[in-house]
Amino acid sequence: MATFSLSQASLPSLRSPNPKSSNPYKAPNIRTHLVSIRCSKSSPSPPPPPPPPPPTPSPAKHRRPADENIRDEARRLHTIHNFSAKYVPFNAGPHSTESYSLDEIVYRSKSGGLLDVQHDFDALKKFDGNYWKALFDSRVGKTTWPYGSGVWSKKEWVLPEIDSDDIVSAFEGNSNLFWAERFGKQFLGMNDLWVKHCGISHTGSFKDLGMTVLVSQVNRLRKMNKPVVGVGCASTGDTSAALSAYCAAAGIPSIVFLPANKISIAQLVQPIANKAFVLSIDTDFDGCMQLIREVTAELPIYLANSLNSLRLEGQKTAAIEILQQFNWEVPNWVIVPGGNLGNIYAFYKGFYMCKELGLVDRIPRLVCAQAANANPLYLHYKSGWKDFKSVKANTTFASAIQIGDPVSIDRAVYALKNSNGIVEEATEEELMNAMSQADSTGMFICPHTGVALTALIKLRNNGIIGPTDRTVVVSTAHGLKFTQSKIDYHSNAIPDMACRFANPPMQVKADFGSVMDVLKNYLSEANPKV
Amino acid sequence: MATFSLSQASLPSLRSPNPKSSNPYKAPNIRTHLVSIRCSKSSPSPPPPPPPPPPTPSPAKHRRPADENIRDEARRLHTIHNFSAKYVPFNAGPHSTESYSLDEIVYRSKSGGLLDVQHDFDALKKFDGNYWKALFDSRVGKTTWPYGSGVWSKKEWVLPEIDSDDIVSAFEGNSNLFWAERFGKQFLGMNDLWVKHCGISHTGSFKDLGMTVLVSQVNRLRKMNKPVVGVGCASTGDTSAALSAYCAAAGIPSIVFLPANKISIAQLVQPIANKAFVLSIDTDFDGCMQLIREVTAELPIYLANSLNSLRLEGQKTAAIEILQQFNWEVPNWVIVPGGNLGNIYAFYKGFYMCKELGLVDRIPRLVCAQAANANPLYLHYKSGWKDFKSVKANTTFASAIQIGDPVSIDRAVYALKNSNGIVEEATEEELMNAMSQADSTGMFICPHTGVALTALIKLRNNGIIGPTDRTVVVSTAHGLKFTQSKIDYHSNAIPDMACRFANPPMQVKADFGSVMDVLKNYLSEANPKV
Repeated sequence: MATFSLSQASLPSLRSPNPKSSNPYKAPNIRTHLVSIRCSKSSPSPPPPPPPPPPTPSPAKHRRPADENIRDEARRLHTIHNFSAKYVPFNAGPHSTESYSLDEIVYRSKSGGLLDVQHDFDALKKFDGNYWKALFDSRVGKTTWPYGSGVWSKKEWVLPEIDSDDIVSAFEGNSNLFWAERFGKQFLGMNDLWVKHCGISHTGSFKDLGMTVLVSQVNRLRKMNKPVVGVGCASTGDTSAALSAYCAAAGIPSIVFLPANKISIAQLVQPIANKAFVLSIDTDFDGCMQLIREVTAELPIYLANSLNSLRLEGQKTAAIEILQQFNWEVPNWVIVPGGNLGNIYAFYKGFYMCKELGLVDRIPRLVCAQAANANPLYLHYKSGWKDFKSVKANTTFASAIQIGDPVSIDRAVYALKNSNGIVEEATEEELMNAMSQADSTGMFICPHTGVALTALIKLRNNGIIGPTDRTVVVSTAHGLKFTQSKIDYHSNAIPDMACRFANPPMQVKADFGSVMDVLKNYLSEANPKV
Repeated sequence: MATFSLSQASLPSLRSPNPKSSNPYKAPNIRTHLVSIRCSKSSPSPPPPPPPPPPTPSPAKHRRPADENIRDEARRLHTIHNFSAKYVPFNAGPHSTESYSLDEIVYRSKSGGLLDVQHDFDALKKFDGNYWKALFDSRVGKTTWPYGSGVWSKKEWVLPEIDSDDIVSAFEGNSNLFWAERFGKQFLGMNDLWVKHCGISHTGSFKDLGMTVLVSQVNRLRKMNKPVVGVGCASTGDTSAALSAYCAAAGIPSIVFLPANKISIAQLVQPIANKAFVLSIDTDFDGCMQLIREVTAELPIYLANSLNSLRLEGQKTAAIEILQQFNWEVPNWVIVPGGNLGNIYAFYKGFYMCKELGLVDRIPRLVCAQAANANPLYLHYKSGWKDFKSVKANTTFASAIQIGDPVSIDRAVYALKNSNGIVEEATEEELMNAMSQADSTGMFICPHTGVALTALIKLRNNGIIGPTDRTVVVSTAHGLKFTQSKIDYHSNAIPDMACRFANPPMQVKADFGSVMDVLKNYLSEANPKV
């Protein structure tokens, strides 16, 4: 085998496997769709502003009949916009001048702090709130590339400068905002309770929203011949699944480091199926983290770690999408499960941008819900934000938020302080009971959503959330990823837990009389008025 | 215990647990949204037809600020439409007068044949294709009840006479139509290949689409005091999951019959979590079917069996949705996995209605894809439709289509004959390889979708499907429901199968040098130009 140097020094020779010019699949015949502005009798009639230029859909990536005039027009209009974004230190003071291009590979600020993607609000503000609402609404429900995605339908607010052709998308987002009618009515006396099912998605968790942004930017960097030979992470869960899926879609190598003998192949089936290079290393999880840091210091592997601020740009679109699905009416409360705490800030940022750019006039109050077994933010909140101390996280069924020293603690505190927010916690029994109660009303949620529902139950019981408050609970993963915990619960197989709502199968002999007896008994209880 | 008679004779006493008048949660303050007709520069300008009346959204079920004028207007407009549907014998001759109200409980025609839901096309045709397209497009992406659902956004074509308040919906449908760019490019030389991910859904399969219709109609029947004390099925898979979820959302008892010791609790976790009454009966699957038939002859339990024609009305909306997502352009091919064969007819019916009602000018060619281990339709097709013989279905990884004597055989033959259709088959190795190839390009599909992709590969290889044909493969379940088959494949643990695309984890010692060695080796292969 030839010996190649894969160190940073050799980077200029790393070329994209798909240079743009040699790709015969980039739609030769394209018809772009001009934006459709909705005309509604019910809309108010403000004095007509000077008409903003129509938005600029890039050419539909899939084949469409040629229509040169419309494409020409789209291309001409494309030059009008001048949106941009850059990395800045998170929550930097007004006098900070530190910033980085999004095309640089940088994970932390000079001082070692978090970064934030800062958009040029002056440029965005040249268009009013109605313009953005009409633009975003015009892109829903179609397959126009890349706007068919719930993330990229907000492209100007996400990665404004990326070429649509560089985007790696699975048409993520546009997830179900479910009216939890029966759960609200039966358990909480609420009539306006909603669950944003971010986990009803391509890879089964909300991580798709952020990963499409991270992998798209990596794809752009590779096309620019920047030094990225692959993307790596040390995760056993949703992050590695989303990373490997998006890398597979783009043909970018993905690398997952895992502790041998600690993880079952079932936990790995998504990265393995998505052809990630999965290294099963004879060490523990901390050892894997240590090794991936050492390796990425030597090899140009982009690190898809949880402090990555690009991912939050995708995740924030879930907040915008909630407003959009409510026809731009603002809910009173949004409850988000919190572990590493990036997501609560992403929701805040999405809501904040909608207010700042005139789409809505206020933001909802945010609630961050933690497992009591991993509750450093809750303790911090209870101390009156006095002193943050990390904790040793204990095992929780809500495994994705089993984190004692959250990377995004500063982001979360900022989001909560600026949204009149609240932090709550859920014990294992509380979260499993809440999950089972929700399932009994037709949902099939994950334990993290059980944490969020527990927070809701507590805030409802103490009167902070009112019976008619419009409330959205964010569900972060599909219940299908957590069937074992449900099996354990309904089998009454969880030590020291009562499993009050367990619903085990009823054993019956195979004769008509026996079956009729148990059925009649059940039905008379289920239909009490009979 | 009191002895109640639950036989049909006692039916009038069965009352809905939620009579409309006593429900305090039915939005007291409602604002309806008038339809938004899109104005697009790119639309042609036909001579203006007499303006159709605006569509008639029912009141939004969730709480909105009061706006009496608009509600009054919506209510007034509501009386304009006069759409209706009824049961007729499937493919009855023009002289048949047999028909049944949808409010009757009837599963088969007088002669024991299949039923079909027949819509009043004369009433629907009073509105032209542009009207329907604008109406359906106006409902996407919002939470207006019930139109936020991909099924109920086509309510006038599904169950036109049901009160929106009776509908049991999880905002199903609006599923991802995924551009399979890399799979098409890498394995098939195609540039316009799409996968309709019907399984990225509330319960993880396409069955939600049909079950929302069946359970809504049952809900209506119960509110009409018709004799329905519960809904039952004998299914181990997606049907029982969808049935129990929708029944749970409505508070309707659901009953699932299963053979004891043949089914693991993992296969049952969805109905159990959704609080179905699961009877584990000491017999085999045929014994369960026999018992549920005997029991439903005695007790007023609605049977959610696979010949139910209501479910097809929901499933057909996936076809309409594909056209809608393509901005009403018609694909060349649609490939559907086939077992009991209701779904291929449902897709045909959806496309047919769009053509007949002027939304599009043609329908796609349909392909039904069967597992070679359960291929009675394939054999029938190969015989030139001469003589249909059921087969003994052998075990297949595509377990939901492991059916030797399909209920909807007549429906499928009709659909294929009227769409210039084709039937293909896939061996176990072919379908598992196709699934793994698709996963390696970023999907995470189920074995049934592997069957459909195998059909595509064969038709592409023999030139019947061309490189630029716009082709849609229908994916029926989320891969997360079939992780065990993926684990077996990637562990090389399937007897007599080569598992050519298996991607097992790489074992590595926990030292920097060893990790660097395997990584450099992998990266030099993955980035060949380095």
